[in-house]
Amino acid sequence: MTTFPQPATGAIDGDVHRYAVRVYYEDTDAGGVVYHANYLRWFERARTDLLILLGVDQRRALEAGEGGYAVSEASIRYLAPARLGDIVRLETVAETVRRVYCVLRQSAWREATKLSEASFRVGFIGPDGRPRPQPEAWLRAFAAFQAVPKGHE
Amino acid sequence: MTTFPQPATGAIDGDVHRYAVRVYYEDTDAGGVVYHANYLRWFERARTDLLILLGVDQRRALEAGEGGYAVSEASIRYLAPARLGDIVRLETVAETVRRVYCVLRQSAWREATKLSEASFRVGFIGPDGRPRPQPEAWLRAFAAFQAVPKGHE
Amino acid sequence: MTTFPQPATGAIDGDVHRYAVRVYYEDTDAGGVVYHANYLRWFERARTDLLILLGVDQRRALEAGEGGYAVSEASIRYLAPARLGDIVRLETVAETVRRVYCVLRQSAWREATKLSEASFRVGFIGPDGRPRPQPEAWLRAFAAFQAVPKGHE
Amino acid sequence: MTTFPQPATGAIDGDVHRYAVRVYYEDTDAGGVVYHANYLRWFERARTDLLILLGVDQRRALEAGEGGYAVSEASIRYLAPARLGDIVRLETVAETVRRVYCVLRQSAWREATKLSEASFRVGFIGPDGRPRPQPEAWLRAFAAFQAVPKGHE
Repeated sequence: MTTFPQPATGAIDGDVHRYAVRVYYEDTDAGGVVYHANYLRWFERARTDLLILLGVDQRRALEAGEGGYAVSEASIRYLAPARLGDIVRLETVAETVRRVYCVLRQSAWREATKLSEASFRVGFIGPDGRPRPQPEAWLRAFAAFQAVPKGHE
Repeated sequence: MTTFPQPATGAIDGDVHRYAVRVYYEDTDAGGVVYHANYLRWFERARTDLLILLGVDQRRALEAGEGGYAVSEASIRYLAPARLGDIVRLETVAETVRRVYCVLRQSAWREATKLSEASFRVGFIGPDGRPRPQPEAWLRAFAAFQAVPKGHE
Repeated sequence: MTTFPQPATGAIDGDVHRYAVRVYYEDTDAGGVVYHANYLRWFERARTDLLILLGVDQRRALEAGEGGYAVSEASIRYLAPARLGDIVRLETVAETVRRVYCVLRQSAWREATKLSEASFRVGFIGPDGRPRPQPEAWLRAFAAFQAVPKGHE
Repeated sequence: MTTFPQPATGAIDGDVHRYAVRVYYEDTDAGGVVYHANYLRWFERARTDLLILLGVDQRRALEAGEGGYAVSEASIRYLAPARLGDIVRLETVAETVRRVYCVLRQSAWREATKLSEASFRVGFIGPDGRPRPQPEAWLRAFAAFQAVPKGHE
C-alpha cells in the first residue's frame, strides 16, 4: 500500500493564515529572481487555501452558477527578491469583512526577511459579472476568522 | 520572397504610449475572464515596448551586468472583465521621472470600456540587487517622453 | 483622432501560417532563456490566430455551449534557446485534417535558426468533455488551408 | 512559538517519485479545465522536487556558472481534464540515465483516473548553452534512483 504526498496546505493560527511555496524555474525570470506578477499567483493560492480551510467551496459555487470571488483592487510592494529554490512563506490576515467585499492583507517572507507585502480587495461576483452579497455561510466563516484575538507570538 | 508578420508593437503618441494585446486561452481562468495577475504581464509588455521605442536596451544592460528595471510597487484596480478573443488596448504615461525611479500610470481598455487602471513604481537595480541611478541616456529618454505636451485628443 | 496599434496578427501564406512574438521577461526563467512550457503558450497563440483568419469563432462556440478545440497530444523538440528581446517567428502547417481531430506542425525561428519544432493533435470537445465532430464550416476552412499547394518560397 | 506549513514536498517510493498539486484558478482557462501547457509546469515542479530529494542542488550549480538541466524533448498525451480544486498526483520514473541526458516518464492522476502521461528528455547544459556531461554525483544519484527494484504495489 502506498501513501501519497499531499499538495501544499496551509494552516490557520489564530487570525493569521500561513502557507508556503517553493520557488521553481517557472516562477523566475531572466533577472534571476521571481517575476513580479507571480507573487499575485502565490497570494491567490494562499487565499484559496484559506477559503478551503474555512469551508468555502468555490468550485461548487462556480459550477452552480452562483458566482465567485474576484479581485477588485490589489496593491503590492516588493521589498527583497526571491530566488530559485527559496522557500517563501505567505501570511494572510483579514483586515475588513463586509457583505459585498473583504480586504485581505498578505505578506511573503524568506525566513525573517520580508519579501513583499500586499493588500487585496476581493468581492463576490455573480455570473452576470455584477457584485452581489457573498453567501451568508461564507461571510460568517470570514468574520469568525477575522475575529479571533491575536495570540502570544 | 516571404514577408513576415511582426510581433505586437506599440506607438508613442505625444505623452501616451499605446499597445494592444488579444486575449488568448492562456490569459483566462475558469471564471471565464482574464486572470487578475495576467494584467501585470500585459502592462509589463507595454512598458517594455515603450522602453524599446525610447531606445532603451534592457537585454544589453542585463548581459553587461549593469542591471535592469524592477517593479518596486504596483497598485491596480479591476473595473470590468475581459474575455477570450477581446482586443485589449493598453495606455501608458510617465507620471514621475527621477534618477532612481519612475512612476508609470497604465490603463487597459476594450473599446470605450476601461477594464483596469494601474500604477507601477519602477526602479533601476544593479546586479547586487541594490538600487542605483538609471543610465543617463535612459533618464533623458524617459524625461523627454514625459515632457511632451498633451495634444488635442 | 488617434489610430491605435493592433495586437500581433499573423498571416496565411499558401499552406503556411506565420506569426511572431517578442520575448518578454514573463517568458524567461532564471537560466536566462525562455522557459520550456512557454513555447506551448506561443504555439497556441499562433493556432488561435490561424483559426481567426480561417473564420473560426472559438468564443462564440464556447459561449453557445458547443465546445471547443482541446490539445490531446503534443510533442516538442527544443533545438536552441531564445532570450529576452528576441523576435521569434512561428510557422504552422496542417498535417492532417479529419472530422474529429487535426494535427498541426509548428516551428519557432529566430531569423534562420530553428529554436523548436512541435506537433499538436487537436480535437473538438463538447461541453460534456467528450470528443465530437467539429463544426462543418470549421472543417471546410481547415481543409482548404491544408489543400493550398505550396508556392515558390 | 509558531510552526509553519511547508511547501509541497514529494517522496521517493522505490523507483517512483510522487508529488501532488492542487488546481488553482491560475492553472485553469476559460474552457473550465487546466490549460494544457500548465501540465509542463507541474511536471517540472515534480522533477525539481525529485532532484532535491536526490541531493542535486540546481541553484548552486546555476550560480556557480556550471549550468543546469534543460528539457530537450517533451511529449505529452492529455487523457482527461482536471478542474478547479482537484488534487492532482504526479508520478515520475527514470526510464534512461546517461552521462549527457536522462529520460523521465511522468504521469498525472486524479485518484484512479489518469489525466496525462508524458516523457521528458532532459540534458545538462553549460553556461555556453552547449551540452556537457552532468556532474558525476548527480549521475550516481539518478542511476541509484533508477536502479531501485520495483516493490509490491
